[in-house]
Amino acid sequence: MTAMEAVKIGLLGIGTVGSGTFRVLERNREEIARRAGRRIEIAWVAARDVAKARAVVGDAIPVVTDAVAAVADPAIDIVVEVIGGTGVAKDAILAAIAHGKHIVTANKALLALHGGEIFAAASARGAMIAFEGAVSGCIPTIKVLREGLAANRIEWIAGIVNGTSNFILSEMRAKGLPFADALSEAQVLGYAEADPTFDVEGIDAAHKLTLLSAIGFGIPVQFDKAYVEGITALTDRDMTYAEKLGYRIKLLGIARRTARGIELRVHPTLIPASRLIASVDGAMNAILVKADAAGVTLYYGAGAGSEPTASAVLADVIDVTRLMRAEPQERVPYLAFQPDALSDVGILPMAEVETSYYLRVRVRDDVGVLADLARTLADAGISIDAMLQQGPGDDRGETDIVILTHPTRERSFDAAMERIVALPAVRPGYSRIRREDLG
Amino acid sequence: MTAMEAVKIGLLGIGTVGSGTFRVLERNREEIARRAGRRIEIAWVAARDVAKARAVVGDAIPVVTDAVAAVADPAIDIVVEVIGGTGVAKDAILAAIAHGKHIVTANKALLALHGGEIFAAASARGAMIAFEGAVSGCIPTIKVLREGLAANRIEWIAGIVNGTSNFILSEMRAKGLPFADALSEAQVLGYAEADPTFDVEGIDAAHKLTLLSAIGFGIPVQFDKAYVEGITALTDRDMTYAEKLGYRIKLLGIARRTARGIELRVHPTLIPASRLIASVDGAMNAILVKADAAGVTLYYGAGAGSEPTASAVLADVIDVTRLMRAEPQERVPYLAFQPDALSDVGILPMAEVETSYYLRVRVRDDVGVLADLARTLADAGISIDAMLQQGPGDDRGETDIVILTHPTRERSFDAAMERIVALPAVRPGYSRIRREDLG
Repeated sequence: MTAMEAVKIGLLGIGTVGSGTFRVLERNREEIARRAGRRIEIAWVAARDVAKARAVVGDAIPVVTDAVAAVADPAIDIVVEVIGGTGVAKDAILAAIAHGKHIVTANKALLALHGGEIFAAASARGAMIAFEGAVSGCIPTIKVLREGLAANRIEWIAGIVNGTSNFILSEMRAKGLPFADALSEAQVLGYAEADPTFDVEGIDAAHKLTLLSAIGFGIPVQFDKAYVEGITALTDRDMTYAEKLGYRIKLLGIARRTARGIELRVHPTLIPASRLIASVDGAMNAILVKADAAGVTLYYGAGAGSEPTASAVLADVIDVTRLMRAEPQERVPYLAFQPDALSDVGILPMAEVETSYYLRVRVRDDVGVLADLARTLADAGISIDAMLQQGPGDDRGETDIVILTHPTRERSFDAAMERIVALPAVRPGYSRIRREDLG
Repeated sequence: MTAMEAVKIGLLGIGTVGSGTFRVLERNREEIARRAGRRIEIAWVAARDVAKARAVVGDAIPVVTDAVAAVADPAIDIVVEVIGGTGVAKDAILAAIAHGKHIVTANKALLALHGGEIFAAASARGAMIAFEGAVSGCIPTIKVLREGLAANRIEWIAGIVNGTSNFILSEMRAKGLPFADALSEAQVLGYAEADPTFDVEGIDAAHKLTLLSAIGFGIPVQFDKAYVEGITALTDRDMTYAEKLGYRIKLLGIARRTARGIELRVHPTLIPASRLIASVDGAMNAILVKADAAGVTLYYGAGAGSEPTASAVLADVIDVTRLMRAEPQERVPYLAFQPDALSDVGILPMAEVETSYYLRVRVRDDVGVLADLARTLADAGISIDAMLQQGPGDDRGETDIVILTHPTRERSFDAAMERIVALPAVRPGYSRIRREDLG
């Protein structure tokens, strides 16, 4: 079909995503060439465990062990980094850029933590860095934000961007499981790792949200400014109450532009059950974007996994293949905005963020307790949107009161909570979950 | 920010989409320049009604009346066609291509009917044709299919791509309205035109589906081969029965790759209520794509309207701006696949399509009627998946029998129906609606 020479890739890593990339490229070789107009070939694979790599790629492709040294190979055009982490991956990417290679990576942690350094190095060498696979697996979220919605002023982005925690929350809701049991189930099924910290503590979601916020608003990558709260403290009881009030609880990454600064926060969130994103269950991802001209759009798909992530990685490879010899101004900027046109709008500290709250407190079932709670909130300027009291008290004379507030600043809410926990009828421990309308 | 000269646009048409394009470009001038690296300016507007155009654009921009003559203007780089239809729009686009202009259009009818001719002319002149606004409004469906999923073999595409008919179906379901009343409501609210034929007969959806099928499968644009059935014959009674069986009825455009050919069909479809796309209500659009590596992904947003469509039109303008001076091989092919790599797989005639059916027949409530129906279907090799009979007969001794079949060829189903309507207990008139699992 084409007389052009094949594009040669050095593939760093042959784990879950790497083997998917190898497999999809093999299987769809013709289909990809029909679109790209050129053949795309893997020149070699870099892997620490040669035997394991051989088990995936067979004997046809060389396997090298030193990724950092390998990227100097003059025969390759593109380095695909799917090792993950911020160690060898970072060294290899910086070395590859120094050798004039273009980069495709699915490494959200690396870009969220060291994006500034890496993009600057690439820019100085005229190298492309494509990272669709770093956010929401196969869903072309980065392309959509960078290009599809490029004429819009993005107002906010709210996404389910961690499949593991969404799977756990779905199981908690569907089966009434406590968090620990749902986590065990996720581990048995391979949706959660032995050490699930990155997923269940919201860190992985915050890495992705950081990248999305940069692309959406034209701000630098600022992971250290993100507010991050995971799902480990969620109880099935709160899920049940939320349900009764017409809500679902999801771990959302939210980036919002406000007059006072950019909100950048990951936390469990009550969302109206009627919203499409509330029905996104299991290990799936979905990103909602509110933009001034387009309105609300939603993008849904598998957020992780071997071939879904490979789909994104290879889409990037095709894009890079097309634009390898193009002038820099013919390429989409790494973070959507021209590097000299970034905004210095600050990230809003969480205490300054305005949102609504779900509050559950356990109280002695006495006359006047509810009035005391309501009065304390009112004194802090917080008005109540809905309330749920669970019938008469249990045999210890205790009952749950659930309150949905109207929007208020987190600082005010925290101050009110200090006074509420000091009320004599209020038992230790309470649940506070933020609530978003997403309309 | 940039010393590069502004890109100049000739805007053909200043109706709903044209005025949105003007407005969004004015409002987001800075945001767009921050991304595109160049200013984008409207040089003039072509409109038949100068006074009406002036009411939108004021005095700052010239208004010309002859679109076909105007596109020769050497000062413009890009022609944005939002006139619609296949008359002046076609002449103006062909004239613009002849003058070496790049084209952005939201004209699905024109491309579905004359895409072959227009793409060939553009290719010969090295002109770009971008048409994101032609399908599903602001949702970047074409970009997603052409680029985001470029590494995949697309298996099928199923979409709600006509907001008017989806609004009508949503109203019929929510309020139990007959079709005619829901249509009137849509007309009063501005969701349907005085002559709603294009929308409610499925023609508009088929235009869009035709474009999606070309991009998804690498086949030529073949609107004349599409099977098209609208929603005018749907009854609220069928919506109620569908609901009872766990389904919703949506007007879907379906393009599917099979071993025997490509399915290309628009018709009302029962889909499981649990699918995300079943909850897409009102004038919204959603496209489901099944791809071999990515799995199922969904894209949701406003499918029409002034600013949502402008969002897509201007995204195209930004893309074209970037690649105006690029080499042809650096641009994404019009229809995703290289023009010399199109496939000649045929479109499957509807009689050969295999799908499941919802069938409602009105029968005399006699012993043995159900057995006769089941026997007739069995004789045609059609097996029954579920059945619903509405209690005892009415005062005329008549009742509805609803049957869901397993997949069968349409030819077999039609043959069985000929025998079923000839059964003595079967009353004239029946409903037959195709059913898809979309899993």
